[in-house]
Amino acid sequence: METIRLGIAGLGRAFSLMLPTFLADARVQLVAACDPRETARAQFEADFDAPAFKDIEALARRPDIDAIYIASPHQFHAAHARIAASHGRHVLVEKPMALSLDECDDMIDACREAKVHLIVGHCHSFDTPYLRTRELIASGAFGDVKMIHALNYTDYLYRPRRPEELRTEEGGGAVFSQAAHQVDIVRMLAGSRATRIRAAVGNWDAARRTEGAYTATLWFENGAFATLSYNGYAHFDSDEWTGWIGEMGQTRSADEYGVARRKLSQVASGEEEARLKAAGTYGGNAYTPASKAPDARRHQHFGPLIVSCERGDLRPMPDGIVVYGDERRERISLEAPAVPRAEVIDELIAAVHGDTAPLHDGIWARGTLEICLAMLRSSAEQRDVLIGGETTNTKEY
Amino acid sequence: METIRLGIAGLGRAFSLMLPTFLADARVQLVAACDPRETARAQFEADFDAPAFKDIEALARRPDIDAIYIASPHQFHAAHARIAASHGRHVLVEKPMALSLDECDDMIDACREAKVHLIVGHCHSFDTPYLRTRELIASGAFGDVKMIHALNYTDYLYRPRRPEELRTEEGGGAVFSQAAHQVDIVRMLAGSRATRIRAAVGNWDAARRTEGAYTATLWFENGAFATLSYNGYAHFDSDEWTGWIGEMGQTRSADEYGVARRKLSQVASGEEEARLKAAGTYGGNAYTPASKAPDARRHQHFGPLIVSCERGDLRPMPDGIVVYGDERRERISLEAPAVPRAEVIDELIAAVHGDTAPLHDGIWARGTLEICLAMLRSSAEQRDVLIGGETTNTKEY
Ligand SMILES: NC(=O)c1ccc[n+]([C@@H]2O[C@H](COP(=O)([O-])OP(=O)(O)OC[C@H]3O[C@@H](n4cnc5c(N)ncnc54)[C@H](O)[C@@H]3O)[C@@H](O)[C@H]2O)c1
Ligand SMILES: NC(=O)c1ccc[n+]([C@@H]2O[C@H](COP(=O)([O-])OP(=O)(O)OC[C@H]3O[C@@H](n4cnc5c(N)ncnc54)[C@H](O)[C@@H]3O)[C@@H](O)[C@H]2O)c1
Repeated sequence: METIRLGIAGLGRAFSLMLPTFLADARVQLVAACDPRETARAQFEADFDAPAFKDIEALARRPDIDAIYIASPHQFHAAHARIAASHGRHVLVEKPMALSLDECDDMIDACREAKVHLIVGHCHSFDTPYLRTRELIASGAFGDVKMIHALNYTDYLYRPRRPEELRTEEGGGAVFSQAAHQVDIVRMLAGSRATRIRAAVGNWDAARRTEGAYTATLWFENGAFATLSYNGYAHFDSDEWTGWIGEMGQTRSADEYGVARRKLSQVASGEEEARLKAAGTYGGNAYTPASKAPDARRHQHFGPLIVSCERGDLRPMPDGIVVYGDERRERISLEAPAVPRAEVIDELIAAVHGDTAPLHDGIWARGTLEICLAMLRSSAEQRDVLIGGETTNTKEY
Repeated sequence: METIRLGIAGLGRAFSLMLPTFLADARVQLVAACDPRETARAQFEADFDAPAFKDIEALARRPDIDAIYIASPHQFHAAHARIAASHGRHVLVEKPMALSLDECDDMIDACREAKVHLIVGHCHSFDTPYLRTRELIASGAFGDVKMIHALNYTDYLYRPRRPEELRTEEGGGAVFSQAAHQVDIVRMLAGSRATRIRAAVGNWDAARRTEGAYTATLWFENGAFATLSYNGYAHFDSDEWTGWIGEMGQTRSADEYGVARRKLSQVASGEEEARLKAAGTYGGNAYTPASKAPDARRHQHFGPLIVSCERGDLRPMPDGIVVYGDERRERISLEAPAVPRAEVIDELIAAVHGDTAPLHDGIWARGTLEICLAMLRSSAEQRDVLIGGETTNTKEY
């Protein structure tokens, strides 16, 4: 069995969402970590009998590390990737890859020079139902992809946040955090280079002044177009259309309405909110540890999605793919995942040990960020933005 | 009780869909009709003991008619409205109002000069769930409308058609026939003037060379934006998300998959297809008469739709409106309709007897056609099209 010795940079919410994977996947050994939060370091040292440092330099210097999972806030991704690479560590960095295309270029260069792999994820485009849908499309059985409709209505904007997560100019909002998933999935399924985008963003809660919603049309070189819509204002919840199976594959209750907004209403300030976020995550006093054998009977997902091909629609679902063919509707069952998000480890191991170029590499993820930035620009400038044709940088709007 | 003596121009599918209304609504008397199809005329004369003519001139001359319901093919709407008005008959004309803005202007002028009312419908924006949602929005309880998401996946393109219904330049395709509903509903709910649109149309079945699908973003003066998506390629069916209640409020079976395409596959030519369409409609040999007491336990609808306001999402459904508020989710039940589409007759009677300006008047419906034409243009020219700012005429693309 090929294993990977992993160092963790950032023991927050993203890490706690990956922890069930790390615990259940025998290929992964957590050997060290870093985080400025003392309680998180203490918990890591206790849980894994492994060192936790205050900053990433100390972590990256450890000789016993193959790769570093960078799960620090967006604004640190670029610098942390550079540090990891400079010490010869492979990089697995959370989405969004970074905040600007310059940062992406820098990360790609650094990893190339250091001859280490760069993978961006977890992103929901790693979820098996989307990967299998991509294979079905590639089989040619349904003809070309023509139209994709993706939507997701969640409580995104009302989960407790750090202050910068509510400031677009610092990478806050649904476009950086959520379109990063949706665009990645849609690009992968379209199987063609995106050429232009037209978008509208929604930003209508004066108390949380960043994008909580968006809609976008994306065009592809092969003639396909896609509609991507997102609404994180915690009203309608589109898990209703996915059989009340949540983003993490968990069974949800239709009755848990309004929880996020209710909890948040007790918070008096931005600092208190950031503390609330930290308290609920790894090392925090309200943290509930993930079990070693997570209840992952279904795959994860990112909202209802329909791919329309010439001879059929494909609908990836948490437990299968529904195929709406010319003559019949069928359901392709997917085996329940033994380990959630194991697809990320598969890609990491294949890269590190097999030197197989990852699907979610830096060039790929840069393409997704470019589209997200173009989304903001299209909405602000009220026009199509060409992809690959215009420089789109955060700084400019 | 205020009644209306109605003449019918065009005894086809639209008429057969309105017939349950005419039969069940005691305010309506069907007094005469016209249609070039002899079998339809014969059936009308037998069913209603009333005359049926070959052409609309003869019908419009009848002195005992208050209004004419124009349900002839799109391309005749303008000429037929002019004839009806010239004889002093009020006009109820099917959607789409006409094929060009010039035709709309002509119809509006003719009716204005003749001092008769012009109403465009039935259109699904008459459906009570949308009208009631509009009232809820107008109450101000949820704040401003910010985002609307409307989608509809049907078998539209595979229902039997006349040849011109498959030729865009003659008014064929989903934009003229189906966006006419969706745009109308969305405009009504946005409650503000549309200012611009960006669209992509899908036209990918070589055997049926017109738009079978589209997606569009529509912007409004009040800052709201809307996503409208339609796919009529008979694969995924969005009635799944409306509890398997169909467009006409009927209970559908999830098992009736692929029926439309299967039936159509037995047809050898365009003429045979047109005959098949006619055979299934009023006077045809495969026509099943609507019962006098239709099974209309639910309202009609045009696909899943979510209106996001500042303080809640509203979701019109065939039997109620789901209100996703900041704190609670509630369901406002709607009384089952006694007569399907009675809302059309309400508006007609109010106009004719109460001289109340109809909501769905010519100016209003012209606005919807303008947006549909702009949709085609935006897709062809790959850019935003301004509404009210640019001339958009069918002839030009
Ligand atoms: N793929 C997913 O499902 C998913 C889910 C959540 C977050 N994320 C991504 O993960 C990243 C982190 O977001 P989060 O929600 O976990 O935030 P978080 O605040 O919960 O976690 C960030 C952690 O990084 C630590 N940190 C801060 N500065 C650091 C530094 N200089 N070096 C090392 N650690 C540092 C914080 O103390 C905290 O423990 C973001 O980029 C986000 O987009 C991905
Ligand atoms: N609101 C709705 O739900 C709905 C549903 C279907 C159709 N429509 C609209 O109704 C109109 C007709 O479409 P349809 O599907 O019923 O088509 P159809 O072919 O079934 O019916 C048209 C009828 O008009 C007759 N006709 C043709 N030329 C005529 C003329 N010069 N004078 C009088 N009658 C004439 C035809 O013989 C036929 O009986 C279209 O504009 C369509 O958009 C609306």
